[in-house]
Amino acid sequence: MKSPPKTAAFNPPPRVLMGPGPSAVSEAVLAAQARATIGHLDPDFTALMDEVKLLLRYAFRTDNDLTMPVSAPGSAGMECCFVNLIEPGETVIVCQNGVFGGRMKENVERIGASCVLVEDEWGAPVDLEKVERAFAEHPDAAALAFVHAETSTGACSDAKALCEIARRHGALAIVDAVTSLGGVPLEVDAWEIDAVYSGTQKCLSAPPGLSPVSFGARALEKISKRRARVQSWFLDVNLVMDYWSGDGGRSYHHTAPVNAIYALHEALRLLADEGLENSWARHSRLHKKLRDGLQALGLEFLVAEPHRLPQLNAVRVPDGVDEARVRAKLLADYHLEIGASLGPLAGKIWRIGLMGHACREENVALCLRALEDALREQGALKRAVA
Amino acid sequence: MKSPPKTAAFNPPPRVLMGPGPSAVSEAVLAAQARATIGHLDPDFTALMDEVKLLLRYAFRTDNDLTMPVSAPGSAGMECCFVNLIEPGETVIVCQNGVFGGRMKENVERIGASCVLVEDEWGAPVDLEKVERAFAEHPDAAALAFVHAETSTGACSDAKALCEIARRHGALAIVDAVTSLGGVPLEVDAWEIDAVYSGTQKCLSAPPGLSPVSFGARALEKISKRRARVQSWFLDVNLVMDYWSGDGGRSYHHTAPVNAIYALHEALRLLADEGLENSWARHSRLHKKLRDGLQALGLEFLVAEPHRLPQLNAVRVPDGVDEARVRAKLLADYHLEIGASLGPLAGKIWRIGLMGHACREENVALCLRALEDALREQGALKRAVA
Repeated sequence: MKSPPKTAAFNPPPRVLMGPGPSAVSEAVLAAQARATIGHLDPDFTALMDEVKLLLRYAFRTDNDLTMPVSAPGSAGMECCFVNLIEPGETVIVCQNGVFGGRMKENVERIGASCVLVEDEWGAPVDLEKVERAFAEHPDAAALAFVHAETSTGACSDAKALCEIARRHGALAIVDAVTSLGGVPLEVDAWEIDAVYSGTQKCLSAPPGLSPVSFGARALEKISKRRARVQSWFLDVNLVMDYWSGDGGRSYHHTAPVNAIYALHEALRLLADEGLENSWARHSRLHKKLRDGLQALGLEFLVAEPHRLPQLNAVRVPDGVDEARVRAKLLADYHLEIGASLGPLAGKIWRIGLMGHACREENVALCLRALEDALREQGALKRAVA
Repeated sequence: MKSPPKTAAFNPPPRVLMGPGPSAVSEAVLAAQARATIGHLDPDFTALMDEVKLLLRYAFRTDNDLTMPVSAPGSAGMECCFVNLIEPGETVIVCQNGVFGGRMKENVERIGASCVLVEDEWGAPVDLEKVERAFAEHPDAAALAFVHAETSTGACSDAKALCEIARRHGALAIVDAVTSLGGVPLEVDAWEIDAVYSGTQKCLSAPPGLSPVSFGARALEKISKRRARVQSWFLDVNLVMDYWSGDGGRSYHHTAPVNAIYALHEALRLLADEGLENSWARHSRLHKKLRDGLQALGLEFLVAEPHRLPQLNAVRVPDGVDEARVRAKLLADYHLEIGASLGPLAGKIWRIGLMGHACREENVALCLRALEDALREQGALKRAVA
């Protein structure tokens, strides 16, 4: 088009973000991101990159050298793990109990590897027995891949036990920690996770757009022995690491997303200031408060209690309730965003996030009161609420 | 690591960005980026996405529907074009006259396609005769790929003529417009470019991190007839476009980098306000002023006059001058960043950017005076300067 479209400066509406992500970003992180852009090879910027690597190691509980943010969203972080670690012809056992297991399968197949699916119901954690059986049938599997915290269902799987199974069968463990990082315990070194990826827009509460990853020693060894080149140039960790490495010279790979790194740095600093354990405890405490309030409204959780993620509360839409109308009312009247759902759960659950900076007393209170009003409006309050 | 590293909030040093990018980002764009994060499926955000698509069509001079920013830097935009358009076993003619042609070759080979290189000296534009000969030898080539504006050398190639050659031979034209978009004429529709990618951090003057792309009708037809699945899930335009499409429902693909889109929107609005032609004229006018000043200092351009990019001025380091010391002095004394160089030109040229918001009278004046001082300090002023 030859003449410019008429547009106005964008002023986002007020929003309280209690969906499945992005979560609320604090003023401090937004301000950090708004500082003046400097060169991506500027000595002050490369020093910042070094700090980001250290802060990420703290958040992941790892000493892995190869710990850095991929310059793209979580789905690119996922792809980064698969394309570097898996070669054509190999077999990968993928656990699917929600949307993101299906995406892992897509990744495996597009590499030309074969995918063995271990399926569980949406809302259930990964079944360890089924994984054992999959290894019994496919003892040569090169890797086991699973989602620690399923954002589509709110279920937390036993990452420690799954990594143990993988290790016992000589397979690498590839872990999706997009929603778990910062919100629930995640121990990359103690659980001997081989490769993990996350996102900035969940419990880290930085704007969306980057994907922190970490690769352990066994993963690096596998990469060093690859026969085929990594099919993605952009995601080839050998190349990316030459850029992120503090040792010796840095070789240009791509232009880092400078301002997004400022934001991630500040968000990780806030997490470090609070302390990981304190962050986990805050998520757990406010989840319980939200849970009690939701149950008082007569709402039921999708996920059985022991497997619930505090940061992602999936509750069933009561019979007869127009769920879209509830979300529209929350957004219009309270500027409150809660999440719809995907796939087989579409229309059946709401996903209420309590992630990072959005995991706050006032948000719990607002959400409960707003939901109460919306349910009452539809004559769907099952119990009397005090 | 179990205890958090000690860090301070990051305050970038003052910098005047006259390197090969990122370029200076205006206060308006930084402020836009700092506005509160909202949901990536929020109706206000999806309306913003629609505006960004329109603004990009204006900047690219195209009516292509499939025009959007890839949620990752320019090198991912490059990979997006190649993995969608090229299939294993096909032949691609790649023009290499700097760093980025080599990267295109990497992309082609990692797809399992074969790459025919047309090589020109670093600093020269792509030689049309050589491209004709390559097509004569490889009449079945599926695509011709070249860099419009070589950031590593400052040379501008004749994109219009190259696209004509490709079309005549029934091949798609894939164009790297990372540094050209907004700085010199680029006519996606009039030149019948089939696929083009750019970056946000050059003449658009948004922070680095996104890659605007546009695909024309022939490219879409090729994609619709693919035999093999696109090897990248993250970059598969069929999936990405379902998310960016305004028609009917949007299907979730990844979480858009919300704040980076705010910034791109504002940067594109500023470009539209100025007008593309006015932006091209500004780059040309200030380039001439810089050129005259550099020549008065006795400095010589790498690229012959007709092929020079106004936004990227590559000048030879005079004999006997310690080029790194000059750059260090500019940075330390004037907070001025100019670029070093890469590959066979390493240590031999400086790259002085005049890109987007950094293309300003005051920057030209500062750069000339600072370079004069730095050269005088090393006894390398060839001529008397008034």
